[in-house]
Amino acid sequence: MDTITTRELKERLAELQGQEVSLQGWIRSHRKQKNMGFIDFYDGTCFKNPQVVYDSAIADFDKIQAFHVGSAVRVTGKVVPSYKDPETPEIQASQITLEGDCPEDYPLQPKRHSVEFLREIAYLRPRTRLFQAVFRIRSVAAMAIHTYFQDRGFVYVHTPLITANDAEGAGNTFTVTTLPLGEKPDFTKDFFGKQTALAVSGQLEGETFAMAFSNINTFGPTFRAENSNTKTHAAEFWMIEPEMAFCDLNRLMEIEEDFLKSIVKYVLDRCPDELKFLDGFTGGGLLDKLNALTESSFARITHEEAITILRKAMENGTEFQFTPEYGGDTAKEHEKYLTEEYFHSPVLVYDWPKEIKSFYMYQNDDGKTVRGVDLLVPGAGELMGGSQREDRLEKLTERMDELGISKETMDWYINLRKFGGCTHSGFGMGFERLLIYLTGVENIRDVIPYFRTPMNCDF
Amino acid sequence: MDTITTRELKERLAELQGQEVSLQGWIRSHRKQKNMGFIDFYDGTCFKNPQVVYDSAIADFDKIQAFHVGSAVRVTGKVVPSYKDPETPEIQASQITLEGDCPEDYPLQPKRHSVEFLREIAYLRPRTRLFQAVFRIRSVAAMAIHTYFQDRGFVYVHTPLITANDAEGAGNTFTVTTLPLGEKPDFTKDFFGKQTALAVSGQLEGETFAMAFSNINTFGPTFRAENSNTKTHAAEFWMIEPEMAFCDLNRLMEIEEDFLKSIVKYVLDRCPDELKFLDGFTGGGLLDKLNALTESSFARITHEEAITILRKAMENGTEFQFTPEYGGDTAKEHEKYLTEEYFHSPVLVYDWPKEIKSFYMYQNDDGKTVRGVDLLVPGAGELMGGSQREDRLEKLTERMDELGISKETMDWYINLRKFGGCTHSGFGMGFERLLIYLTGVENIRDVIPYFRTPMNCDF
Repeated sequence: MDTITTRELKERLAELQGQEVSLQGWIRSHRKQKNMGFIDFYDGTCFKNPQVVYDSAIADFDKIQAFHVGSAVRVTGKVVPSYKDPETPEIQASQITLEGDCPEDYPLQPKRHSVEFLREIAYLRPRTRLFQAVFRIRSVAAMAIHTYFQDRGFVYVHTPLITANDAEGAGNTFTVTTLPLGEKPDFTKDFFGKQTALAVSGQLEGETFAMAFSNINTFGPTFRAENSNTKTHAAEFWMIEPEMAFCDLNRLMEIEEDFLKSIVKYVLDRCPDELKFLDGFTGGGLLDKLNALTESSFARITHEEAITILRKAMENGTEFQFTPEYGGDTAKEHEKYLTEEYFHSPVLVYDWPKEIKSFYMYQNDDGKTVRGVDLLVPGAGELMGGSQREDRLEKLTERMDELGISKETMDWYINLRKFGGCTHSGFGMGFERLLIYLTGVENIRDVIPYFRTPMNCDF
Repeated sequence: MDTITTRELKERLAELQGQEVSLQGWIRSHRKQKNMGFIDFYDGTCFKNPQVVYDSAIADFDKIQAFHVGSAVRVTGKVVPSYKDPETPEIQASQITLEGDCPEDYPLQPKRHSVEFLREIAYLRPRTRLFQAVFRIRSVAAMAIHTYFQDRGFVYVHTPLITANDAEGAGNTFTVTTLPLGEKPDFTKDFFGKQTALAVSGQLEGETFAMAFSNINTFGPTFRAENSNTKTHAAEFWMIEPEMAFCDLNRLMEIEEDFLKSIVKYVLDRCPDELKFLDGFTGGGLLDKLNALTESSFARITHEEAITILRKAMENGTEFQFTPEYGGDTAKEHEKYLTEEYFHSPVLVYDWPKEIKSFYMYQNDDGKTVRGVDLLVPGAGELMGGSQREDRLEKLTERMDELGISKETMDWYINLRKFGGCTHSGFGMGFERLLIYLTGVENIRDVIPYFRTPMNCDF
């Protein structure tokens, strides 16, 4: 008899009812009675796992009763319906053998541990139900993203992580070097013969591929040496940056909306048990929020309209810590008001003051705004940042001059506007920001397998 | 009338025959006659593209005839069958407008450029037919890998790139720091409060997740500061590292074989035009090689058997530069002989001398060998390296002591053998090594969007 996973057991349940199967996995908890035992068994391939039941007729009954929480075991037994849950059977065990013991001082006991404690034992936390849910969703959401783009003919591009091009990251980058530290650096002797850093974005390289394949997307790690100890900042995180040729700001906003709805639907379809658990864990409202998103129509307003709405709200008694300014950025509290109080839906805010946005955004005729767009979502604030790119050579180089950005090291980027340039647009989405939204888990440290934050680089 | 891509045109060809469509893309070449013009048009969404034909009845005929190679254009016209190729229609243009001009000194002229020249203009090379084929296959092969694992319930894990754990990479790593260079380094003041480097593998962290989810895979960038200027080494490349609990060496070899065949089939199914082009570009034999692989049965031999075969070959007159040794590694020429001359198939070589393999491999009872396995393939040599992992606590720590590997910083890895450990196995595959095999393109610099090698870090 072949060993199967609990995932196969679930998929083939009708066929396997009443049959004998073998499973391999671990003991999450072990409840013992005089003539019986109940093992909460899991192998991690399926969120809901069968309970293993054995009685004193089993060989080695006393030995089995002594099996510790955390141990690896092999179970053989008959699949029988469970009274509690028709989708998750019980296994009436005829044999249980120990594959790997676990001491009684195992840190993961069957009780609720704080997320802070679990971060300290990050290598064990994927064994808990919370992190089984979170990291399965992380995996499925990644596949949702790849599927979305591949189904639409996009080319997945791996942009470089080590870069000598610092147009975007000045001051916030990690140095990468093979030079001995402590000596006066001679970069001509460094591995690449020049000063290099970890990339903060793959967008500019992504644009070069969009000018060849029309539609491309990146999905890779990104690094920021920002000394921020917040719930939403990590020094190492994953980003998705699609870039589309022959695409203007309006089409970009359509794509952002369609993309997010598709991802959410994909995860709702494939992780119902994980989401139901997280819905309870996070105090309810998660499933409602996600289901509502797939049905909603995203609001679209200019930055100016957004500020007007916020200022009117202040006049009518809403209290903000920061006063919304026509020339300025919006704060978290403003984003919250727009999505959760005013529109009750995601909001696309476009046409931003050019002073607070990047040099590569398309300049509107008003001389004041650029075709940038931020997607704000209820419960998580800014989820995507995008723009139509400046494709007019003179406008781009003028803006680079104004901002003091070197044109020499960026000649290849500028040349895209010379060699068959066209209207094009793209956006960036932080993958962990999406996961915070999808799981309801609030801290970025709890949606990354091994988080890197200031003073934290363990495992 | 909506604008469509050439990919949609191909998919909906039967329906669109005789209809008017609009396309947006670029001019690859432009042949002019007195009363007619022929544009080799592409938008990068499909490898085979329609020819655009116009005649003097079109508005702005003279202006259109002056359109340069490399320009971005919008074409409207009727879809008609092509005499040359029933799958790829012609467009009888009624309108052609310029979206973005391109100067006459554009580096990519319609002639064959050397790959060396194209590396210097790496930001333009994805526009060539060669790199349209290579980078589409790169994208599709990545999806093949994700699909393989997701279909089998694996959890995709993003292992950390910045690490303080240097068990595997001693001497070959890039330092990551925010300290000012040139001053005596005080690592307690570095971003993470300790010395950090770029990871050379995610395997050890991958194992921690396999002990929770049973089956996991990584797919992410990896870094080696090796000063090697060969065709197959890059400082930054992508790796796939699956790890399976309750899986021994034999099952690992089955999975490696099944995995590689699935990936090759997936790419053969989805990129026939790209592969046909590469088959011609690389001098023939590529398609035969890939098709043969999907039908072949991989040979399985121990390292000892491999050395015996190689030494017999020498006795019978085969010349090797390096003499095969029972205690030593195999050279490229040996791998070539085994796969291309002796077995005419991929070969799994297992049970390697423990001295030349990693500390974490399962030690056989003979006291001399470990359960490591290398997959060798015809035409590309070693494609995967894997092993059953040492899951016996004492054996592992003894070996670490012998090799002088610190047990303190690796306590979490060692603890996996204490807290419900089990038989488990995994392998690593360099993604670019796979692409060299899949595309027939020989140099790793030509299968990475922007390659990083000693003294090269452009774009």
